[in-house]
Amino acid sequence: MSALGKVYLIGAGPGAADLITVRGARLLAQADVVLYDALVTPDMLELCAQAEKISVGKRSGQRSTAQAHINEQLVDCARRFRLVVRLKGGDPMLFGRADEELRALEAAGVEVEVVPGITTAVAAAAAAKQPLTKRGVARSVAFFTSSTAPDEPEHRSAGPAALPATDTMVQYMGGREAAATAERLLGLGRPADLPVVVVENCSRPDQRILRLPLSELAHGLEMAHGPVLVMIGEALRRRAQQGRDLPPAPGAYSV
Amino acid sequence: MSALGKVYLIGAGPGAADLITVRGARLLAQADVVLYDALVTPDMLELCAQAEKISVGKRSGQRSTAQAHINEQLVDCARRFRLVVRLKGGDPMLFGRADEELRALEAAGVEVEVVPGITTAVAAAAAAKQPLTKRGVARSVAFFTSSTAPDEPEHRSAGPAALPATDTMVQYMGGREAAATAERLLGLGRPADLPVVVVENCSRPDQRILRLPLSELAHGLEMAHGPVLVMIGEALRRRAQQGRDLPPAPGAYSV
Repeated sequence: MSALGKVYLIGAGPGAADLITVRGARLLAQADVVLYDALVTPDMLELCAQAEKISVGKRSGQRSTAQAHINEQLVDCARRFRLVVRLKGGDPMLFGRADEELRALEAAGVEVEVVPGITTAVAAAAAAKQPLTKRGVARSVAFFTSSTAPDEPEHRSAGPAALPATDTMVQYMGGREAAATAERLLGLGRPADLPVVVVENCSRPDQRILRLPLSELAHGLEMAHGPVLVMIGEALRRRAQQGRDLPPAPGAYSV
Repeated sequence: MSALGKVYLIGAGPGAADLITVRGARLLAQADVVLYDALVTPDMLELCAQAEKISVGKRSGQRSTAQAHINEQLVDCARRFRLVVRLKGGDPMLFGRADEELRALEAAGVEVEVVPGITTAVAAAAAAKQPLTKRGVARSVAFFTSSTAPDEPEHRSAGPAALPATDTMVQYMGGREAAATAERLLGLGRPADLPVVVVENCSRPDQRILRLPLSELAHGLEMAHGPVLVMIGEALRRRAQQGRDLPPAPGAYSV
Protein backbone atom coordinates (compact mmCIF):
# COMPACT_ATOMS: atom_id res chain seq x y z
CA MET A 1 0.00 0.00 0.00
CA SER A 2 0.57 3.67 -0.13
CA ALA A 3 3.25 5.08 -2.32
CA LEU A 4 3.29 8.73 -1.35
CA GLY A 5 2.76 11.33 -4.07
CA LYS A 6 5.58 13.51 -5.30
CA VAL A 7 5.65 17.23 -4.54
CA TYR A 8 7.02 19.82 -6.99
CA LEU A 9 7.94 23.25 -5.62
CA ILE A 10 7.49 25.36 -8.74
CA GLY A 11 8.36 29.00 -9.32
CA ALA A 12 5.47 30.80 -11.02
CA GLY A 13 7.61 33.78 -11.96
CA PRO A 14 6.56 37.40 -11.55
CA GLY A 15 2.93 37.12 -12.63
CA ALA A 16 2.42 36.90 -16.39
CA ALA A 17 1.20 33.38 -17.23
CA ASP A 18 3.79 32.93 -19.99
CA LEU A 19 6.74 33.75 -17.75
CA ILE A 20 6.59 30.36 -16.07
CA THR A 21 9.05 27.81 -17.47
CA VAL A 22 8.00 25.20 -20.01
CA ARG A 23 8.71 22.54 -17.38
CA GLY A 24 6.58 24.33 -14.81
CA ALA A 25 3.67 24.71 -17.25
CA ARG A 26 3.84 21.03 -18.21
CA LEU A 27 3.75 19.92 -14.57
CA LEU A 28 0.86 22.28 -13.80
CA ALA A 29 -1.11 20.67 -16.65
CA GLN A 30 -0.48 17.23 -15.09
CA ALA A 31 -1.05 18.16 -11.44
CA ASP A 32 -3.69 16.52 -9.29
CA VAL A 33 -3.63 19.34 -6.77
CA VAL A 34 -2.03 22.80 -6.69
CA LEU A 35 -1.36 24.80 -3.52
CA TYR A 36 -0.77 28.40 -4.54
CA ASP A 37 0.27 31.74 -3.05
CA ALA A 38 -1.74 34.94 -3.21
CA LEU A 39 0.93 36.31 -5.58
CA VAL A 40 0.00 33.70 -8.20
CA THR A 41 -2.32 35.22 -10.82
CA PRO A 42 -5.68 33.80 -12.01
CA ASP A 43 -4.23 33.54 -15.56
CA MET A 44 -1.55 31.21 -14.26
CA LEU A 45 -4.14 28.97 -12.58
CA GLU A 46 -5.77 28.40 -15.97
CA LEU A 47 -2.71 26.27 -16.73
CA CYS A 48 -4.01 23.71 -14.21
CA ALA A 49 -7.73 23.75 -14.90
CA GLN A 50 -7.89 19.99 -14.22
CA ALA A 51 -6.37 20.20 -10.74
CA GLU A 52 -7.88 20.74 -7.34
CA LYS A 53 -6.70 24.18 -6.26
CA ILE A 54 -5.95 25.26 -2.70
CA SER A 55 -5.17 28.88 -1.86
CA VAL A 56 -2.61 29.20 0.89
CA GLY A 57 -2.78 32.98 0.59
CA LYS A 58 0.61 34.11 1.83
CA ARG A 59 1.17 37.70 0.93
CA SER A 60 3.33 40.28 2.57
CA GLY A 61 1.27 42.54 4.81
CA GLN A 62 -1.93 40.53 4.46
CA ARG A 63 -3.46 37.97 6.74
CA SER A 64 -1.89 34.68 5.63
CA THR A 65 -2.05 31.00 6.34
CA ALA A 66 0.56 30.14 8.93
CA GLN A 67 3.61 28.40 7.46
CA ALA A 68 3.19 25.40 9.76
CA HIS A 69 -0.30 24.85 8.42
CA ILE A 70 0.95 25.04 4.81
CA ASN A 71 3.57 22.43 5.66
CA GLU A 72 0.85 20.14 7.07
CA GLN A 73 -1.32 20.64 4.00
CA LEU A 74 1.59 19.72 1.71
CA VAL A 75 2.26 16.47 3.54
CA ASP A 76 -1.45 15.70 3.64
CA CYS A 77 -1.75 16.27 -0.11
CA ALA A 78 1.22 13.98 -0.76
CA ARG A 79 -0.73 11.26 1.07
CA ARG A 80 -3.89 11.80 -0.96
CA PHE A 81 -2.64 12.73 -4.45
CA ARG A 82 -0.06 11.47 -6.92
CA LEU A 83 1.29 14.74 -8.36
CA VAL A 84 1.25 17.69 -5.99
CA VAL A 85 2.35 21.18 -7.07
CA ARG A 86 3.31 23.89 -4.60
CA LEU A 87 3.21 27.01 -6.79
CA LYS A 88 5.11 30.01 -5.46
CA GLY A 89 5.41 33.53 -6.84
CA GLY A 90 8.87 34.26 -8.28
CA ASP A 91 11.45 31.56 -7.58
CA PRO A 92 10.99 29.08 -4.71
CA MET A 93 14.61 29.40 -3.52
CA LEU A 94 14.58 33.20 -3.15
CA PHE A 95 12.45 34.61 -0.31
CA GLY A 96 10.09 31.65 -0.64
CA ARG A 97 10.23 29.87 2.74
CA ALA A 98 11.27 26.75 0.83
CA ASP A 99 13.54 25.54 3.61
CA GLU A 100 10.59 25.00 5.93
CA GLU A 101 8.53 23.18 3.33
CA LEU A 102 11.45 20.99 2.26
CA ARG A 103 12.11 20.02 5.88
CA ALA A 104 8.49 19.09 6.52
CA LEU A 105 8.26 17.00 3.36
CA GLU A 106 11.59 15.26 3.93
CA ALA A 107 10.64 14.46 7.51
CA ALA A 108 7.48 12.77 6.20
CA GLY A 109 9.48 10.83 3.60
CA VAL A 110 7.92 12.65 0.65
CA GLU A 111 9.90 12.96 -2.58
CA VAL A 112 10.37 16.60 -3.63
CA GLU A 113 11.65 18.27 -6.78
CA VAL A 114 12.21 22.01 -7.27
CA VAL A 115 11.50 23.78 -10.56
CA PRO A 116 13.06 27.25 -10.69
CA GLY A 117 11.10 30.36 -11.62
CA ILE A 118 11.83 33.83 -12.96
CA THR A 119 12.63 35.89 -9.92
CA THR A 120 11.05 39.34 -9.96
CA ALA A 121 14.37 41.20 -10.14
CA VAL A 122 15.27 39.87 -13.59
CA ALA A 123 11.71 40.34 -14.85
CA ALA A 124 11.76 43.93 -13.61
CA ALA A 125 15.14 44.52 -15.27
CA ALA A 126 13.69 43.12 -18.52
CA ALA A 127 10.60 45.32 -18.25
CA ALA A 128 12.72 48.43 -17.71
CA LYS A 129 15.30 47.25 -20.28
CA GLN A 130 17.91 47.99 -17.68
CA PRO A 131 20.62 45.35 -17.03
CA LEU A 132 21.57 44.66 -13.41
CA THR A 133 25.22 44.17 -14.32
CA LYS A 134 27.21 46.25 -16.74
CA ARG A 135 30.73 45.89 -18.07
CA GLY A 136 33.11 48.20 -16.24
CA VAL A 137 30.30 49.52 -14.01
CA ALA A 138 28.60 46.71 -12.11
CA ARG A 139 29.73 43.14 -11.71
CA SER A 140 27.81 42.30 -8.55
CA VAL A 141 24.17 42.50 -7.58
CA ALA A 142 22.40 41.76 -4.30
CA PHE A 143 18.79 40.76 -3.73
CA PHE A 144 17.59 41.46 -0.21
CA THR A 145 14.56 42.08 1.95
CA SER A 146 14.18 44.52 4.75
CA SER A 147 14.50 43.58 8.38
CA THR A 148 10.85 44.30 9.02
CA ALA A 149 9.13 41.94 6.61
CA PRO A 150 5.92 40.71 8.26
CA ASP A 151 6.96 37.08 7.75
CA GLU A 152 10.11 37.51 9.78
CA PRO A 153 9.08 38.58 13.25
CA GLU A 154 12.32 37.38 14.78
CA HIS A 155 14.10 40.08 12.85
CA ARG A 156 12.02 42.92 14.18
CA SER A 157 14.05 43.45 17.28
CA ALA A 158 17.40 42.73 15.64
CA GLY A 159 17.58 46.11 13.95
CA PRO A 160 18.61 46.69 10.38
CA ALA A 161 21.06 44.29 8.75
CA ALA A 162 24.17 45.48 6.97
CA LEU A 163 23.42 46.77 3.51
CA PRO A 164 24.97 44.60 0.81
CA ALA A 165 28.22 46.07 -0.53
CA THR A 166 27.37 45.30 -4.15
CA ASP A 167 27.35 47.49 -7.26
CA THR A 168 23.62 46.96 -7.81
CA MET A 169 21.07 46.46 -5.03
CA VAL A 170 17.55 45.08 -5.42
CA GLN A 171 15.15 45.29 -2.53
CA TYR A 172 12.26 42.82 -2.66
CA MET A 173 8.97 43.78 -1.06
CA GLY A 174 10.57 47.17 -0.94
CA GLY A 175 7.64 49.45 -0.17
CA ARG A 176 8.09 51.72 2.82
CA GLU A 177 11.24 49.79 3.75
CA ALA A 178 13.07 51.02 0.65
CA ALA A 179 12.71 54.60 1.87
CA ALA A 180 14.80 53.59 4.88
CA THR A 181 17.35 51.96 2.56
CA ALA A 182 17.63 55.19 0.57
CA GLU A 183 18.19 57.17 3.74
CA ARG A 184 20.93 54.79 4.89
CA LEU A 185 22.67 54.84 1.49
CA LEU A 186 22.64 58.64 1.41
CA GLY A 187 24.05 58.61 4.95
CA LEU A 188 26.85 56.33 3.71
CA GLY A 189 27.77 58.92 1.11
CA ARG A 190 26.14 57.40 -1.97
CA PRO A 191 25.37 60.16 -4.50
CA ALA A 192 21.95 61.81 -4.42
CA ASP A 193 21.56 61.19 -8.15
CA LEU A 194 22.26 57.45 -7.98
CA PRO A 195 19.67 55.93 -10.34
CA VAL A 196 16.70 54.03 -8.91
CA VAL A 197 14.10 52.08 -10.84
CA VAL A 198 10.91 51.04 -9.04
CA VAL A 199 8.72 48.38 -10.66
CA GLU A 200 5.21 47.84 -9.35
CA ASN A 201 3.06 44.82 -10.34
CA CYS A 202 5.90 43.50 -12.49
CA SER A 203 4.85 41.80 -15.75
CA ARG A 204 1.12 42.32 -15.06
CA PRO A 205 -1.28 44.45 -17.08
CA ASP A 206 -1.09 47.16 -14.42
CA GLN A 207 2.71 47.19 -14.30
CA ARG A 208 4.20 50.62 -13.57
CA ILE A 209 7.83 51.70 -13.85
CA LEU A 210 9.19 54.68 -11.98
CA ARG A 211 12.66 56.13 -12.51
CA LEU A 212 14.08 58.59 -10.06
CA PRO A 213 17.26 59.56 -8.21
CA LEU A 214 18.10 58.06 -4.84
CA SER A 215 17.31 61.32 -3.06
CA GLU A 216 13.69 61.18 -4.29
CA LEU A 217 13.00 57.53 -3.59
CA ALA A 218 11.04 58.06 -0.39
CA HIS A 219 8.67 60.45 -2.13
CA GLY A 220 8.27 58.22 -5.18
CA LEU A 221 7.19 55.22 -3.11
CA GLU A 222 4.14 57.07 -1.82
CA MET A 223 2.58 56.45 -5.23
CA ALA A 224 2.97 52.67 -5.11
CA HIS A 225 0.16 50.34 -4.07
CA GLY A 226 0.92 46.83 -5.39
CA PRO A 227 3.96 44.61 -4.86
CA VAL A 228 7.02 46.78 -5.40
CA LEU A 229 10.60 45.99 -6.35
CA VAL A 230 13.29 48.66 -5.93
CA MET A 231 16.51 48.52 -7.98
CA ILE A 232 19.37 50.86 -7.07
CA GLY A 233 22.74 51.42 -8.73
CA GLU A 234 24.76 53.07 -11.45
CA ALA A 235 23.88 50.21 -13.86
CA LEU A 236 20.29 51.48 -13.75
CA ARG A 237 21.21 54.81 -15.33
CA ARG A 238 19.11 55.55 -18.40
CA ARG A 239 20.87 55.16 -21.76
CA ALA A 240 21.14 58.16 -24.08
CA GLN A 241 18.83 56.76 -26.71
CA GLN A 242 16.61 54.76 -24.44
CA GLY A 243 13.16 55.92 -23.57
CA ARG A 244 11.15 55.69 -26.73
CA ASP A 245 9.07 53.40 -24.56
CA LEU A 246 9.21 55.20 -21.23
CA PRO A 247 8.62 58.82 -20.31
CA PRO A 248 11.91 60.53 -19.54
CA ALA A 249 10.74 62.69 -16.65
CA PRO A 250 11.89 61.40 -13.25
CA GLY A 251 8.89 60.87 -11.04
CA ALA A 252 6.53 59.97 -13.86
CA TYR A 253 5.08 56.50 -14.06
CA SER A 254 4.96 54.77 -17.40
CA VAL A 255 1.93 52.62 -18.13
CA MET B 1 9.95 50.77 -47.50
CA SER B 2 11.86 49.21 -44.72
CA ALA B 3 10.21 48.72 -41.40
CA LEU B 4 13.05 47.33 -39.31
CA GLY B 5 12.56 43.98 -37.66
CA LYS B 6 12.12 43.64 -33.92
CA VAL B 7 14.82 42.10 -31.74
CA TYR B 8 14.05 40.00 -28.66
CA LEU B 9 16.83 39.46 -26.14
CA ILE B 10 15.74 36.16 -24.62
CA GLY B 11 17.16 34.30 -21.64
CA ALA B 12 17.65 30.63 -22.47
CA GLY B 13 18.05 29.66 -18.83
CA PRO B 14 20.75 27.31 -17.52
CA GLY B 15 20.71 24.74 -20.31
CA ALA B 16 17.81 22.27 -20.13
CA ALA B 17 15.47 23.01 -23.04
CA ASP B 18 12.37 23.05 -20.80
CA LEU B 19 13.80 25.67 -18.43
CA ILE B 20 13.19 28.46 -20.93
CA THR B 21 9.99 30.43 -20.31
CA VAL B 22 6.79 29.71 -22.22
CA ARG B 23 7.11 33.18 -23.78
CA GLY B 24 10.70 32.54 -24.84
CA ALA B 25 9.80 29.17 -26.39
CA ARG B 26 6.90 30.70 -28.32
CA LEU B 27 9.11 33.47 -29.73
CA LEU B 28 11.81 30.96 -30.68
CA ALA B 29 9.20 28.99 -32.65
CA GLN B 30 8.26 32.20 -34.54
CA ALA B 31 11.77 33.55 -35.10
CA ASP B 32 13.20 34.24 -38.54
CA VAL B 33 16.77 34.24 -37.24
CA VAL B 34 18.39 33.31 -33.92
CA LEU B 35 21.83 34.52 -32.79
CA TYR B 36 22.94 32.26 -29.95
CA ASP B 37 25.74 31.93 -27.40
CA ALA B 38 27.99 28.91 -26.98
CA LEU B 39 26.22 28.29 -23.65
CA VAL B 40 22.94 27.59 -25.45
CA THR B 41 22.40 23.83 -25.85
CA PRO B 42 21.56 21.96 -29.09
CA ASP B 43 18.27 20.79 -27.47
CA MET B 44 17.25 24.40 -27.05
CA LEU B 45 17.92 25.15 -30.71
CA GLU B 46 15.41 22.47 -31.69
CA LEU B 47 12.79 24.95 -30.47
CA CYS B 48 13.61 27.13 -33.50
CA ALA B 49 14.08 24.54 -36.24
CA GLN B 50 12.48 26.93 -38.78
CA ALA B 51 14.92 29.80 -38.12
CA GLU B 52 18.28 30.68 -39.58
CA LYS B 53 20.76 30.14 -36.77
CA ILE B 54 23.94 32.12 -36.20
CA SER B 55 26.45 31.08 -33.54
CA VAL B 56 28.10 34.05 -31.88
CA GLY B 57 30.11 31.68 -29.70
CA LYS B 58 30.80 33.71 -26.59
CA ARG B 59 32.00 31.52 -23.80
CA SER B 60 34.21 32.28 -20.86
CA GLY B 61 37.75 31.16 -21.50
CA GLN B 62 37.20 30.26 -25.16
CA ARG B 63 37.90 32.20 -28.28
CA SER B 64 34.77 34.28 -28.87
CA THR B 65 33.24 36.66 -31.34
CA ALA B 66 34.05 40.23 -30.34
CA GLN B 67 31.08 42.03 -28.76
CA ALA B 68 31.26 44.85 -31.33
CA HIS B 69 30.82 42.32 -34.11
CA ILE B 70 27.82 40.76 -32.37
CA ASN B 71 26.27 44.23 -32.08
CA GLU B 72 26.75 44.76 -35.83
CA GLN B 73 25.25 41.38 -36.64
CA LEU B 74 22.18 42.18 -34.54
CA VAL B 75 21.55 45.46 -36.32
CA ASP B 76 22.17 43.81 -39.68
CA CYS B 77 19.67 41.05 -38.87
CA ALA B 78 17.06 43.63 -37.85
CA ARG B 79 17.43 45.12 -41.34
CA ARG B 80 17.00 41.76 -43.06
CA PHE B 81 14.51 39.86 -40.88
CA ARG B 82 11.20 40.54 -39.22
CA LEU B 83 11.60 38.64 -35.95
CA VAL B 84 15.13 38.43 -34.61
CA VAL B 85 16.00 36.51 -31.43
CA ARG B 86 19.21 37.05 -29.51
CA LEU B 87 19.34 33.96 -27.30
CA LYS B 88 21.59 34.21 -24.25
CA GLY B 89 22.46 31.62 -21.64
CA GLY B 90 20.87 32.34 -18.26
CA ASP B 91 19.17 35.73 -18.00
CA PRO B 92 20.08 38.57 -20.39
CA MET B 93 20.24 41.19 -17.64
CA LEU B 94 22.71 39.31 -15.43
CA PHE B 95 26.29 39.03 -16.75
CA GLY B 96 24.95 39.10 -20.31
CA ARG B 97 26.51 42.20 -21.92
CA ALA B 98 22.95 43.37 -22.62
CA ASP B 99 23.83 47.02 -22.11
CA GLU B 100 26.09 47.02 -25.15
CA GLU B 101 23.57 45.25 -27.37
CA LEU B 102 20.71 47.49 -26.24
CA ARG B 103 22.78 50.61 -26.98
CA ALA B 104 23.72 49.41 -30.47
CA LEU B 105 20.11 48.51 -31.31
CA GLU B 106 18.68 51.74 -29.89
CA ALA B 107 21.24 53.81 -31.80
CA ALA B 108 20.08 52.11 -35.01
CA GLY B 109 16.44 52.76 -34.17
CA VAL B 110 15.61 49.07 -33.73
CA GLU B 111 12.76 48.08 -31.40
CA VAL B 112 13.91 45.72 -28.64
CA GLU B 113 12.10 43.64 -26.06
CA VAL B 114 13.72 41.61 -23.27
CA VAL B 115 12.37 38.23 -22.14
CA PRO B 116 13.86 37.16 -18.81
CA GLY B 117 15.44 33.75 -18.26
CA ILE B 118 16.21 31.45 -15.35
CA THR B 119 19.54 32.62 -14.04
CA THR B 120 21.90 29.80 -13.17
CA ALA B 121 21.95 30.58 -9.45
CA VAL B 122 18.29 29.73 -8.92
CA ALA B 123 18.52 26.66 -11.16
CA ALA B 124 21.54 25.47 -9.17
CA ALA B 125 19.70 26.08 -5.90
CA ALA B 126 16.77 24.06 -7.25
CA ALA B 127 19.07 21.23 -8.37
CA ALA B 128 20.71 21.07 -4.94
CA LYS B 129 17.34 21.63 -3.17
CA GLN B 130 19.09 24.32 -1.20
CA PRO B 131 17.35 27.70 -0.81
CA LEU B 132 19.51 30.82 -1.16
CA THR B 133 17.56 32.63 1.53
CA LYS B 134 16.36 31.15 4.77
CA ARG B 135 14.20 32.56 7.50
CA GLY B 136 16.31 33.78 10.43
CA VAL B 137 19.54 32.78 8.64
CA ALA B 138 19.85 34.51 5.26
CA ARG B 139 17.81 37.39 3.93
CA SER B 140 20.26 38.66 1.33
CA VAL B 141 22.08 37.03 -1.55
CA ALA B 142 24.67 38.41 -3.97
CA PHE B 143 25.49 37.23 -7.48
CA PHE B 144 28.95 38.28 -8.63
CA THR B 145 31.79 37.49 -11.00
CA SER B 146 35.46 37.63 -10.32
CA SER B 147 37.64 40.51 -11.37
CA THR B 148 39.48 38.36 -13.88
CA ALA B 149 36.68 37.20 -16.16
CA PRO B 150 38.09 36.99 -19.71
CA ASP B 151 35.33 39.26 -21.01
CA GLU B 152 36.32 42.10 -18.72
CA PRO B 153 39.91 43.02 -19.53
CA GLU B 154 39.53 46.48 -18.03
CA HIS B 155 39.15 44.86 -14.65
CA ARG B 156 42.39 42.92 -14.81
CA SER B 157 44.53 45.67 -13.44
CA ALA B 158 41.96 46.98 -10.99
CA GLY B 159 42.58 44.22 -8.46
CA PRO B 160 39.87 42.35 -6.62
CA ALA B 161 36.61 44.15 -5.85
CA ALA B 162 35.09 44.21 -2.39
CA LEU B 163 33.34 40.97 -1.56
CA PRO B 164 29.59 41.43 -1.20
CA ALA B 165 28.50 41.72 2.43
CA THR B 166 25.51 39.43 2.00
CA ASP B 167 24.39 36.32 3.87
CA THR B 168 24.63 34.13 0.76
CA MET B 169 27.17 34.62 -2.03
CA VAL B 170 27.00 33.12 -5.49
CA GLN B 171 30.01 33.38 -7.78
CA TYR B 172 29.24 32.99 -11.49
CA MET B 173 31.92 31.54 -13.76
CA GLY B 174 33.54 30.66 -10.47
CA GLY B 175 36.20 28.17 -11.50
CA ARG B 176 39.70 29.01 -10.32
CA GLU B 177 38.48 32.44 -9.25
CA ALA B 178 36.31 30.95 -6.50
CA ALA B 179 39.40 29.53 -4.83
CA ALA B 180 40.58 33.11 -4.39
CA THR B 181 37.18 34.06 -2.97
CA ALA B 182 37.43 31.24 -0.43
CA GLU B 183 40.87 32.38 0.63
CA ARG B 184 39.68 35.96 1.09
CA LEU B 185 36.61 34.88 3.08
CA LEU B 186 38.72 32.73 5.39
CA GLY B 187 41.07 35.71 5.81
CA LEU B 188 38.07 37.81 6.82
CA GLY B 189 37.30 35.34 9.58
CA ARG B 190 34.48 33.37 7.98
CA PRO B 191 34.29 29.89 9.51
CA ALA B 192 36.21 27.07 7.84
CA ASP B 193 33.07 24.91 7.88
CA LEU B 194 30.86 27.48 6.10
CA PRO B 195 28.86 25.39 3.62
CA VAL B 196 29.67 25.60 -0.09
CA VAL B 197 27.74 24.01 -2.94
CA VAL B 198 29.37 23.83 -6.37
CA VAL B 199 27.18 23.05 -9.38
CA GLU B 200 28.81 22.13 -12.67
CA ASN B 201 26.88 21.96 -15.97
CA CYS B 202 23.71 23.03 -14.17
CA SER B 203 20.48 21.38 -15.41
CA ARG B 204 22.29 19.35 -18.10
CA PRO B 205 22.59 15.57 -18.29
CA ASP B 206 26.16 15.81 -16.99
CA GLN B 207 25.26 18.05 -14.05
CA ARG B 208 27.39 17.46 -10.96
CA ILE B 209 26.84 18.79 -7.45
CA LEU B 210 29.64 19.04 -4.95
CA ARG B 211 29.15 19.93 -1.28
CA LEU B 212 32.09 20.89 0.85
CA PRO B 213 33.23 23.30 3.56
CA LEU B 214 34.76 26.66 2.68
CA SER B 215 38.21 25.49 3.71
CA GLU B 216 38.14 22.72 1.05
CA LEU B 217 36.75 24.76 -1.84
CA ALA B 218 40.07 25.27 -3.62
CA HIS B 219 40.73 21.54 -3.66
CA GLY B 220 37.19 20.69 -4.78
CA LEU B 221 37.35 22.97 -7.80
CA GLU B 222 40.22 20.97 -9.27
CA MET B 223 37.63 18.35 -10.20
CA ALA B 224 35.44 20.71 -12.23
CA HIS B 225 35.66 21.00 -16.00
CA GLY B 226 32.45 22.60 -17.32
CA PRO B 227 30.78 25.90 -16.41
CA VAL B 228 30.77 26.14 -12.64
CA LEU B 229 28.63 28.06 -10.17
CA VAL B 230 29.79 28.39 -6.55
CA MET B 231 27.27 29.07 -3.77
CA ILE B 232 28.56 29.99 -0.29
CA GLY B 233 26.72 30.62 2.95
CA GLU B 234 25.02 29.22 6.02
CA ALA B 235 21.76 28.81 4.05
CA LEU B 236 23.51 26.11 2.02
CA ARG B 237 23.95 23.86 5.04
CA ARG B 238 22.57 20.39 4.45
CA ARG B 239 19.29 19.58 6.19
CA ALA B 240 19.14 16.71 8.65
CA GLN B 241 16.90 14.53 6.52
CA GLN B 242 18.10 15.70 3.15
CA GLY B 243 20.34 13.61 1.03
CA ARG B 244 18.30 10.65 -0.06
CA ASP B 245 19.21 12.00 -3.48
CA LEU B 246 22.79 13.11 -2.91
CA PRO B 247 25.74 11.34 -1.36
CA PRO B 248 26.49 12.81 2.05
CA ALA B 249 30.29 12.69 1.90
CA PRO B 250 31.86 16.12 1.38
CA GLY B 251 34.08 16.04 -1.66
CA ALA B 252 31.99 13.46 -3.51
CA TYR B 253 30.22 14.44 -6.67
CA SER B 254 26.69 13.30 -7.19
CA VAL B 255 25.67 12.35 -10.69
